[in-house]
Amino acid sequence: MNPLSSTARTRLGRYPERSSADRSVLHEILDDGMICHLGLVVNGSPRVLPTGYGRLDDTLYIHGSTGASSLMEGPAQDICVTVTHLDGIVLARSLFHHSINYRSAVIYGTPRLLDGDDKLTGLRAITEQLAPGQWDVARRPTRKEMAGVTVLALSLDEASVKIRQGPPSDDDPDHDLDVWAGVLPVHQAFGAPDPDPLLRSGIPVPGHIARRVTS
Amino acid sequence: MNPLSSTARTRLGRYPERSSADRSVLHEILDDGMICHLGLVVNGSPRVLPTGYGRLDDTLYIHGSTGASSLMEGPAQDICVTVTHLDGIVLARSLFHHSINYRSAVIYGTPRLLDGDDKLTGLRAITEQLAPGQWDVARRPTRKEMAGVTVLALSLDEASVKIRQGPPSDDDPDHDLDVWAGVLPVHQAFGAPDPDPLLRSGIPVPGHIARRVTS
Repeated sequence: MNPLSSTARTRLGRYPERSSADRSVLHEILDDGMICHLGLVVNGSPRVLPTGYGRLDDTLYIHGSTGASSLMEGPAQDICVTVTHLDGIVLARSLFHHSINYRSAVIYGTPRLLDGDDKLTGLRAITEQLAPGQWDVARRPTRKEMAGVTVLALSLDEASVKIRQGPPSDDDPDHDLDVWAGVLPVHQAFGAPDPDPLLRSGIPVPGHIARRVTS
Repeated sequence: MNPLSSTARTRLGRYPERSSADRSVLHEILDDGMICHLGLVVNGSPRVLPTGYGRLDDTLYIHGSTGASSLMEGPAQDICVTVTHLDGIVLARSLFHHSINYRSAVIYGTPRLLDGDDKLTGLRAITEQLAPGQWDVARRPTRKEMAGVTVLALSLDEASVKIRQGPPSDDDPDHDLDVWAGVLPVHQAFGAPDPDPLLRSGIPVPGHIARRVTS
């Protein structure tokens, strides 16, 4: 795999040691997420909207229905897509060194609006990212339904990752303080599946959904 | 409390029934979060960065150190701050109606760069949002440390909230399908606190941290 390229936009100004040029790290961060934050410029102002996404190789597919009206007006324009995992709260002895453990990916580029088979491929990637296993069990979209969905493709050519992990980085003299220090781990958890009140009787929760439950 | 105002930027184009004009709902969504996504325009392109924040009344305080260099260059400029909670994965009988249950807040405005007492107030709000109780136990920032932090204040005047909750909205004919449908709840969970390897012996995990553990 090619390493991540360094451009003016993807070079980290702050804490450059937290970056990684390893493309497989980018893939892992993206594959671990369920929603991204899509950044657009609308009438000169930034707009940030949460939406679904999926990845295949070095293409990111984005559910664009929320933000797409402004993307489809006028000429092709740059977007920014950010995926962030909050992994822990870093509790230091000094307030200054309080921090978060996280993994984030930031991708820049000009998206392509998909149609036909490409659009179906993208929608499948987005669905499987959020709800793995569902593509094979749920009713497939009709032609009319497909027309009501916007799917964008964004190359992973211009991307950066930033990671902070590990204990707090207190200054040496603070190690003597009588203050607890460490990390409070944070993770996303799945509760017990809540059946649709309209669910027909006798349909059990399928294994691919039940297996995700963590509590 | 004043209701949320409706502007061209905050009016929802899609699913307007998912919006709320209730300012207390905006406050709840913000108070439930730990990180936001900060959107900027840099050289005409959008940039979206995760960062910490806090709220007091109708002011949002943002830890601006990551994105602030571009904010401090040139004239005052608009930003967009988005906070999103993923509450559930909506598993429908049809792929078209797969969705997410979520609560999101989107705030637009031109931030003020804080200093002096205002900056300390903002930093305290940001710290207490991420690590409630720590302001009173950890070492306070020195003058030099304060100079190394950027804190922005953003009014909550121009904001919108969007919420989807509840079961899938399958089309009537699909209710007969032999496919499980419902919601897989998602929440953020806290693991067992992981002490700093450099922690002095005999310092127990304080109650305000231990009480957050969910698993």
